[in-house]
Amino acid sequence: MTDLSYTVPGLGTDDSRRLVEALQDRLHALNDLHLTLKHAHWNVVGPQFIAVHEMLDPQVELVRGYADEVAERIAQLGASPVGTPGRLVAERGWSDYELGRAGTQEHLAAIDQVYDGVIASHRKAITLAGELDPITEDILIGQSAELEKFQWFVRAHLERSQS
Amino acid sequence: MTDLSYTVPGLGTDDSRRLVEALQDRLHALNDLHLTLKHAHWNVVGPQFIAVHEMLDPQVELVRGYADEVAERIAQLGASPVGTPGRLVAERGWSDYELGRAGTQEHLAAIDQVYDGVIASHRKAITLAGELDPITEDILIGQSAELEKFQWFVRAHLERSQS
Amino acid sequence: MTDLSYTVPGLGTDDSRRLVEALQDRLHALNDLHLTLKHAHWNVVGPQFIAVHEMLDPQVELVRGYADEVAERIAQLGASPVGTPGRLVAERGWSDYELGRAGTQEHLAAIDQVYDGVIASHRKAITLAGELDPITEDILIGQSAELEKFQWFVRAHLERSQS
Amino acid sequence: MTDLSYTVPGLGTDDSRRLVEALQDRLHALNDLHLTLKHAHWNVVGPQFIAVHEMLDPQVELVRGYADEVAERIAQLGASPVGTPGRLVAERGWSDYELGRAGTQEHLAAIDQVYDGVIASHRKAITLAGELDPITEDILIGQSAELEKFQWFVRAHLERSQS
Amino acid sequence: MTDLSYTVPGLGTDDSRRLVEALQDRLHALNDLHLTLKHAHWNVVGPQFIAVHEMLDPQVELVRGYADEVAERIAQLGASPVGTPGRLVAERGWSDYELGRAGTQEHLAAIDQVYDGVIASHRKAITLAGELDPITEDILIGQSAELEKFQWFVRAHLERSQS
Amino acid sequence: MTDLSYTVPGLGTDDSRRLVEALQDRLHALNDLHLTLKHAHWNVVGPQFIAVHEMLDPQVELVRGYADEVAERIAQLGASPVGTPGRLVAERGWSDYELGRAGTQEHLAAIDQVYDGVIASHRKAITLAGELDPITEDILIGQSAELEKFQWFVRAHLERSQS
Amino acid sequence: MTDLSYTVPGLGTDDSRRLVEALQDRLHALNDLHLTLKHAHWNVVGPQFIAVHEMLDPQVELVRGYADEVAERIAQLGASPVGTPGRLVAERGWSDYELGRAGTQEHLAAIDQVYDGVIASHRKAITLAGELDPITEDILIGQSAELEKFQWFVRAHLERSQS
Amino acid sequence: MTDLSYTVPGLGTDDSRRLVEALQDRLHALNDLHLTLKHAHWNVVGPQFIAVHEMLDPQVELVRGYADEVAERIAQLGASPVGTPGRLVAERGWSDYELGRAGTQEHLAAIDQVYDGVIASHRKAITLAGELDPITEDILIGQSAELEKFQWFVRAHLERSQS
Amino acid sequence: MTDLSYTVPGLGTDDSRRLVEALQDRLHALNDLHLTLKHAHWNVVGPQFIAVHEMLDPQVELVRGYADEVAERIAQLGASPVGTPGRLVAERGWSDYELGRAGTQEHLAAIDQVYDGVIASHRKAITLAGELDPITEDILIGQSAELEKFQWFVRAHLERSQS
Amino acid sequence: MTDLSYTVPGLGTDDSRRLVEALQDRLHALNDLHLTLKHAHWNVVGPQFIAVHEMLDPQVELVRGYADEVAERIAQLGASPVGTPGRLVAERGWSDYELGRAGTQEHLAAIDQVYDGVIASHRKAITLAGELDPITEDILIGQSAELEKFQWFVRAHLERSQS
Amino acid sequence: MTDLSYTVPGLGTDDSRRLVEALQDRLHALNDLHLTLKHAHWNVVGPQFIAVHEMLDPQVELVRGYADEVAERIAQLGASPVGTPGRLVAERGWSDYELGRAGTQEHLAAIDQVYDGVIASHRKAITLAGELDPITEDILIGQSAELEKFQWFVRAHLERSQS
Amino acid sequence: MTDLSYTVPGLGTDDSRRLVEALQDRLHALNDLHLTLKHAHWNVVGPQFIAVHEMLDPQVELVRGYADEVAERIAQLGASPVGTPGRLVAERGWSDYELGRAGTQEHLAAIDQVYDGVIASHRKAITLAGELDPITEDILIGQSAELEKFQWFVRAHLERSQS
Repeated sequence: MTDLSYTVPGLGTDDSRRLVEALQDRLHALNDLHLTLKHAHWNVVGPQFIAVHEMLDPQVELVRGYADEVAERIAQLGASPVGTPGRLVAERGWSDYELGRAGTQEHLAAIDQVYDGVIASHRKAITLAGELDPITEDILIGQSAELEKFQWFVRAHLERSQS
Repeated sequence: MTDLSYTVPGLGTDDSRRLVEALQDRLHALNDLHLTLKHAHWNVVGPQFIAVHEMLDPQVELVRGYADEVAERIAQLGASPVGTPGRLVAERGWSDYELGRAGTQEHLAAIDQVYDGVIASHRKAITLAGELDPITEDILIGQSAELEKFQWFVRAHLERSQS
Repeated sequence: MTDLSYTVPGLGTDDSRRLVEALQDRLHALNDLHLTLKHAHWNVVGPQFIAVHEMLDPQVELVRGYADEVAERIAQLGASPVGTPGRLVAERGWSDYELGRAGTQEHLAAIDQVYDGVIASHRKAITLAGELDPITEDILIGQSAELEKFQWFVRAHLERSQS
Repeated sequence: MTDLSYTVPGLGTDDSRRLVEALQDRLHALNDLHLTLKHAHWNVVGPQFIAVHEMLDPQVELVRGYADEVAERIAQLGASPVGTPGRLVAERGWSDYELGRAGTQEHLAAIDQVYDGVIASHRKAITLAGELDPITEDILIGQSAELEKFQWFVRAHLERSQS
Repeated sequence: MTDLSYTVPGLGTDDSRRLVEALQDRLHALNDLHLTLKHAHWNVVGPQFIAVHEMLDPQVELVRGYADEVAERIAQLGASPVGTPGRLVAERGWSDYELGRAGTQEHLAAIDQVYDGVIASHRKAITLAGELDPITEDILIGQSAELEKFQWFVRAHLERSQS
Repeated sequence: MTDLSYTVPGLGTDDSRRLVEALQDRLHALNDLHLTLKHAHWNVVGPQFIAVHEMLDPQVELVRGYADEVAERIAQLGASPVGTPGRLVAERGWSDYELGRAGTQEHLAAIDQVYDGVIASHRKAITLAGELDPITEDILIGQSAELEKFQWFVRAHLERSQS
Repeated sequence: MTDLSYTVPGLGTDDSRRLVEALQDRLHALNDLHLTLKHAHWNVVGPQFIAVHEMLDPQVELVRGYADEVAERIAQLGASPVGTPGRLVAERGWSDYELGRAGTQEHLAAIDQVYDGVIASHRKAITLAGELDPITEDILIGQSAELEKFQWFVRAHLERSQS
Repeated sequence: MTDLSYTVPGLGTDDSRRLVEALQDRLHALNDLHLTLKHAHWNVVGPQFIAVHEMLDPQVELVRGYADEVAERIAQLGASPVGTPGRLVAERGWSDYELGRAGTQEHLAAIDQVYDGVIASHRKAITLAGELDPITEDILIGQSAELEKFQWFVRAHLERSQS
Repeated sequence: MTDLSYTVPGLGTDDSRRLVEALQDRLHALNDLHLTLKHAHWNVVGPQFIAVHEMLDPQVELVRGYADEVAERIAQLGASPVGTPGRLVAERGWSDYELGRAGTQEHLAAIDQVYDGVIASHRKAITLAGELDPITEDILIGQSAELEKFQWFVRAHLERSQS
Repeated sequence: MTDLSYTVPGLGTDDSRRLVEALQDRLHALNDLHLTLKHAHWNVVGPQFIAVHEMLDPQVELVRGYADEVAERIAQLGASPVGTPGRLVAERGWSDYELGRAGTQEHLAAIDQVYDGVIASHRKAITLAGELDPITEDILIGQSAELEKFQWFVRAHLERSQS
Repeated sequence: MTDLSYTVPGLGTDDSRRLVEALQDRLHALNDLHLTLKHAHWNVVGPQFIAVHEMLDPQVELVRGYADEVAERIAQLGASPVGTPGRLVAERGWSDYELGRAGTQEHLAAIDQVYDGVIASHRKAITLAGELDPITEDILIGQSAELEKFQWFVRAHLERSQS
Repeated sequence: MTDLSYTVPGLGTDDSRRLVEALQDRLHALNDLHLTLKHAHWNVVGPQFIAVHEMLDPQVELVRGYADEVAERIAQLGASPVGTPGRLVAERGWSDYELGRAGTQEHLAAIDQVYDGVIASHRKAITLAGELDPITEDILIGQSAELEKFQWFVRAHLERSQS
């Protein structure tokens, strides 16, 4: 069980522990996501190559910033955030992204599924945080707004893709 | 009939009134155009989504600046520029852009037609201004150069679109 | 009735439809507002001309960004945002701003009333979104904070205006 | 009792008064805090001098911005924010920071206590605002996120300080 | 009579001489104008002080750039541009600006008259250049557009100045 | 009596102590001044609101920088600068600024008086420093130049304020 | 004969063809010019080396931009601009620049002659465009203004070169 | 065995395959390294917290850029770079970084060992690339220079750490 | 045979001459390449127009810089670099790029072939320079790294182009 | 005799009047100087054209800033600064700069003499201000430092000019 | 004895010679100082490595700028500034800095002594210049302010270094 | 004999010692060079003063950066870099630069000789490093490229200097 050095003023220790557990799961998801988006960035091919290759990079930057934000929130709550790849793989509840070199539409369809998972879990964490800590809730809401916007970018490519 | 507080030094009042009328029509066209381009920016879908979505925004910025330039020229000529949507709709000589969510090529084809109208009318206003006021003429020429460049961008997407 | 292609993960279709309707109304209000503020920017006169003329422009920029944010949220919820002037005028529940060339204090008094309407409706949309979707709620709260700040700027000019 | 010129559309006068009172207390706390952090910035000594001296300045900048944000919120609610030092000292519920020239670890321990007070009171104001006004609530949540992050910086220096 | 070292390719010597004479007059006008606007910048007083004081400076910068542009055009035409104050005063056809320390509205009214003269003469030079050299014509048209815009700023302060 | 850890090379200890006392008084004055200017920034109203509201902020920034400069000079002279509000209020020789929400001209008249005090005392400190330490003297002269310039800004609004 | 895909709205096909022919000639001239100026940039020697070496680079940048502007105008008129070196050499009406490593004054004298040719031909194209298309005319006038300014820079070095 | 779509002109397929294998190993090492450095960034504590916390971030940025450079080199050689965490953990020849929350000196000592491994392997890859492909060799040399510089930063903290 | 004024210290004259010959060939190739890429930039059409049009420009900028770098290296070796189009066409060992207005995929396929030639020749020059001069070798390696990266961009569009 | 509205706190009215007179003379000198330097900027010719043409412009900018600084100091002392060309010519104690188009060395020799006059008079004003007002003294010392530096630039060109 | 080409207007030749001698000594001290600070920057070790390593660099930059300022002042006074290392070592009145690789506190203690010498000598030069030339005096005062501030940074590390 | 604390992973201690010796010699040469170039910057006179004065400064900046790069490489190899002037003069194998105030061409001729020495020695160090350590070799190659480019600048002034 998570051992806390301290926590933020005005928040109980048990509530902090529950937040830390949820946030550690989000940290793994975000670390996985930015590695996966970079992997896709390197492996997309086809006539839309340059547009999709370049569209992914700003999202990578954002997601790396979100991982940092979540990890530092864990530290503020008095726990030790875990960011190493071995622990990520051992503790995550999903598998590696499977596509290698493939067309842009194939990658975008696979990324759409990745976002389905990350966003649905972020929403659950928002609900939990909403009961315990408005600051953590607000951080996760702000991240979800951008994740949902980017998923729309992805989805908009997949609509009417025969046109 | 337009009532002028004053006009620019060296220009007759009647000439100013004729310029104001032509410029108010251009102001409506430019306000309509930037709203329409933003509407398309939000509604394009398909494999070229991100490229077209991003190509439209700089043109929106330019056209907003042109509306400002034309409106302030009207004010310099001593009249009151009208920029409200009710007046725009009541006084314009064309209908609303009709596409909603649609593929990028469909939107580009529709935007091409919009530019046909705006540019042809700008050219007529250039001719009028060329007879009355070289400063107004120069403003409209500069705007047309960019509008024609952007229409080329649009058209270049539509050529050989089966490739 | 609004037909949705998809919606954000974790949100029901009916809830999404209700959000879309509220957001489309806010989109019309924001498009109307930035056109109206520009109109005032061109038509103010009097000894405070330059100060008021310049004060309005940053707010125009902000409101244009808010329209973009709301429209893209509609698209994320799977619907088609409407941004054309004809639809705006046909669907809005208020009339055109009526002042033409007028003194700065007259315009500020009229703008104060415009903000009364926009802000009160934003607050209602916040309440609705608060029940359905914290991300949409957070977007509208952030916009309201700036709209209320700007209304204070306007109101501060109107107090003790005889001094 | 606070006399309001007006308040933001959609908010009752009594609720506004309660918010103003809470916010004025936060304004005093933030003005006190940025003065105190600057005081520490000038008075720290010891082998970590430059690192701690420079770490404090960005927080001073943030806190000054938060004081501005809170004071302008009070004005938006129709009241007069009070920012003079005499009123601050007369109305605050805590004493002056007591350290003069001292080692970095001594100052950080004292600042940690200052943050305990400011953050706990901010959380109470968040709860109050959560019942009355989501815009005010959101402002205070955003400030708390940064204040709690900076307290973590401070606390991280104090752990294992014998190493 | 002006002695030319050379002139631009494709332009006759006599035409160049006529252009040089017109441009030297414009150079004196522009040098006079930027000195006068700075003088007003230093001498305005009254409740609109800061707004008017700051509004004048960007125009000073523009006019200094226009003087440079005109003088270098004279040099391109093979003549020697004259920019010293003694020659300016000896050769100009107007008197010194007469206001010292005075209210902003008084200064703006006087500046409005100064612009009447400068702009009317610029328009005459445009007509002359239009017959001889499109490059010179284009330079003067571009300058007039900004001078007329600034005069509108000035005039907008003078309308309804009792409001 | 002030106990100095060291002082700058080439300056006697007694001279340093006299400088420290004068500088501590200036530090209190500058801390008071930037709090007071912010207070006015929040409380001005009337038709010149935006111009005066914005004019005050750059001065706040400058004065905060001057407080920093003076405090660090005290530290260089081997003493501990005092920047907490309790000590400021206990040790200052003047009262709190008294205006709350009021018209711009009222605030500017009150600020004019505040500057009378600060500048006159700065001049006395310049005289003292001129006898003891040219570096301290130079710092205070540079600050006075800007304080006197800003007071001119304030005064220029008060002249012919009926115009 | 040039086969056009389309042309800009409001311009006849024959007029467009005549413009395209003139512009293609200007494109060759501008491509030749920026290569030649770079060649000189690398080959100047003598006591003014660094000043002349650095003076040429900004002009290279400008001329490259002008080639781009002319080529894109050809494309807007519905034709295919030709920018390859083989076609340039086959279609141009002048010979290669002949100087290799040589003194700055020798190079400047040779560049002066190059500009004589480019500018005189640009003026002819301005006359043609003036009859057919004000947008093309305006583009060429703007380019000529800078080309003539740079030729003056070159010529100013050659005057009194014995001093 | 790696299946190549193509490779860079002038390089044999077998040589390319050997380079790809070495580079994929380097890619895993660099992805592991930037995750590990971020992990340490979040978990350091003690009196040097802020200095070490901030020192790690620029190195994270560099290493992320190096991973990108190596992955894109693999793609240029016609292979598919692998950047997912599952594959990284399955294919790496080393274990997870083991420290959690710990003092700065403990972390720096552990990071020093990590760099020993990464740099020694980079040197071996340089030797291999030196025989096959000077472009790949140059990329790895450039990366090693910065990695060795950063290890020196780390080591310099560990020398005389009792002082 | 190339006549050298001097060469870099520590390099023999014959070696310098051999380097100069190889570099002059590279200079022609790079000048040809940036003209060709600009030509393609103007002539691409089809649904990927904007993405490919914009992808080419940064490469044009890089290649222009490489031509400059190679030409200045020739000058450092004491020879005169040749950059005029007539000499380029007369001395190059390849033909003009043949495509005019054509679809993006056609142009990318043609550009892919151009890069095959340029890169293979650069590699040969690297081998030569590796025997004679490490500074020249390093310059060419750095250029090849970017040229190969850009060719990968081009090739990635051509893979699975039916998707 | 100069009529002062007020003066800076702590300075006598008579002393202020003496300062105003000296500063008005410096204002005329600085206005004359920046016009003269621009005049020379336009009229220099010869092999050093570009170097001298460009060297003069930063000094023009500095001197314009000094005129502003001196004029605003006059205003702070309660008087009205005079910046119009008629008053400048009527009140100055020197004649117009006499050179027209001439070689760079001739102009530099003439400018050297101009600086002799301006700097010697600035030194006298420094002495006067040193007795009356350290703030004015400091402003003039700072200006003289740059004026003397620029005169050295000029003089350095004139030494060994036969080399 | 120093032979002067000229000196600044209004300063006697003998006074200039005395200033030159004092300034040459300051130039040697400043050149020595920036070399020494860089030497320390490379040689510090221990747990405060990164903080002290980075703190030294901005001071190196400042001191290099001061050497430039002093040397150019010597040139303005008509003498030849000496900046070569042989002359520096031959003419200086102090020995080389003796520490090599050592802990941060050891280096800071040694640098503190270096500053004692430089600052005390600068103060003597200020006294001399105060009698002869206010511009030189002002330059040295400005430099001393920053040197004394940096020495305080150094000293603050040495106080309570056991904490 | 040099005593190393450690060296970079994968490099032998004896090889490191040989590199350190060569690099310490290069460090002395680069420190000497930037001092000498500044000395020339201050002492050039004649008609090309400003062009040569300004050309030297960017090279000073580069060379200072190279000294830093070499010194930090020594530290990475585990040795203590020596940057004090006494050690430089005692250990260098060349004499002080001898010119004082002299014409630009005289200084450039002398600097040309200085570069002959520095570059030839850098090439020898490249050869040594090429056998021992590719990272050190790459650093020295990169520096030589810029040093040789700057020597070309210098030499280009000396060719045809009678023109």
